[in-house]
Amino acid sequence: MIRIDSATAAELWSVAEEMAAAARRETLRHFRQGGLTAETKEADRFDPVTVADRAAETAMREVLARRRPQDAVLGEEFGATPGSSGLTWVLDPIDGTRGYLSGTPTWGVLIAVSDGDGPFLGLIDQPYVSERFMGGAGRAELSGPLGRHPLRTRPPRPLSEAILFTTFPEIGSSEERAAFDALAGNVRLTRYGMDCYAYALVAAGQIDLVVEAGLQAYDVQAPIAVISAAGGIVTDWHGRPAHEGGRILAAANSRIHEQALAILSRVG
Amino acid sequence: MIRIDSATAAELWSVAEEMAAAARRETLRHFRQGGLTAETKEADRFDPVTVADRAAETAMREVLARRRPQDAVLGEEFGATPGSSGLTWVLDPIDGTRGYLSGTPTWGVLIAVSDGDGPFLGLIDQPYVSERFMGGAGRAELSGPLGRHPLRTRPPRPLSEAILFTTFPEIGSSEERAAFDALAGNVRLTRYGMDCYAYALVAAGQIDLVVEAGLQAYDVQAPIAVISAAGGIVTDWHGRPAHEGGRILAAANSRIHEQALAILSRVG
Repeated sequence: MIRIDSATAAELWSVAEEMAAAARRETLRHFRQGGLTAETKEADRFDPVTVADRAAETAMREVLARRRPQDAVLGEEFGATPGSSGLTWVLDPIDGTRGYLSGTPTWGVLIAVSDGDGPFLGLIDQPYVSERFMGGAGRAELSGPLGRHPLRTRPPRPLSEAILFTTFPEIGSSEERAAFDALAGNVRLTRYGMDCYAYALVAAGQIDLVVEAGLQAYDVQAPIAVISAAGGIVTDWHGRPAHEGGRILAAANSRIHEQALAILSRVG
Repeated sequence: MIRIDSATAAELWSVAEEMAAAARRETLRHFRQGGLTAETKEADRFDPVTVADRAAETAMREVLARRRPQDAVLGEEFGATPGSSGLTWVLDPIDGTRGYLSGTPTWGVLIAVSDGDGPFLGLIDQPYVSERFMGGAGRAELSGPLGRHPLRTRPPRPLSEAILFTTFPEIGSSEERAAFDALAGNVRLTRYGMDCYAYALVAAGQIDLVVEAGLQAYDVQAPIAVISAAGGIVTDWHGRPAHEGGRILAAANSRIHEQALAILSRVG
């Protein structure tokens, strides 16, 4: 793990916030406008890539090229760019492109900084709501319509009292779906459709669990850093590191994480 | 149908906006705070009623008692209050209490004015986003983070290109679920979890269809007025008036409404 001193942490946060501001401009320029281009990346999957997606990643990469040219970049749209510092910026310019195309306020811009051990700084930005969830490298903070507040996850409660989110009810394979349904059957409330906003709600102390499958590194690294900084824990469905993506379990605390894991880990 | 002149329309809008502002204060006072009271109204169904729900309806009723004492009121929390004008204010102080409790920005305050023939003025307010969708009695307008814009639904497109929303994937009875799934299998994209915000997205020209079941009058009257004013159409699953609630089909235009109806109306 690379040692980050406080001056470097402050610089990384300054860069991350400049990037988020740039991405906010680009994503809002096209949000809810007619004539969005929606291409399909894979023939069998609806995954629209918008003009905004590319413009926002380009804008973020321009900030990095100017302020942190020594760092590597991994972006959803333009792939990997090598660096020399040992740090990598992991970017998803619009997480939740389907939500973005539909006009919901639950998609987000994801920015993470990781070293060889995973992400240690993360930012989830919702441009339309003007809301920014930030965690790691000394911070755990929400800035939004009601001002600035510390981010802190919920304390432990019984699984039967928990609130669980996932983006798609049609989550993963049939085996993954069965594991999810088993967990959902043991919680108080299950909700859908929030994209990365669900992770932000874990960090903000509003919900207990998020379960997803089939994620990419750029989908999950910012949520991992934000939730960890707020007191939560994110792993795969077997309790292992999740920063490469795949099956994700995000939990408000280690107690409820353990309870959820006991159910999800039955999947092979 | 009661004839509303332009002076009365202006007064009703002024009252509706004062009510929405009052409800915004009350709902935001408790939003994302710890210690929310969540009671269960029915033993077999998770339906939290929060302090905020009651405070917001009380605040709206206080505005009405002062400015429109001659009108009847039907509210989700405090039921029916008679009036003498032939007009009824139909109120849902927090539509989407589960979303509210979870911290999402997709619940809303619903205000409608109806006469014997149904709602002719409606307002959907999302306090956290500062977003207000207004339709009927001469208006079809969105006021939000990006300013003021006219509301207009989408033009017709093939069902295979449509975006469909519903709140719960576990919608209605098994028969209703089968009808929903048949429709979902014919559209481009199906999304979940948006509460009343889905109706606002129809009015705003972002999505094509919303399908729900088991709704109450206070859940649907504001969406009916807003969507109708924006050029859309809301009925039950057989094309009949829907302002008493039940099974709801909201559509961006009559062409796509007809296509969706052809599938949903197979349910007895």
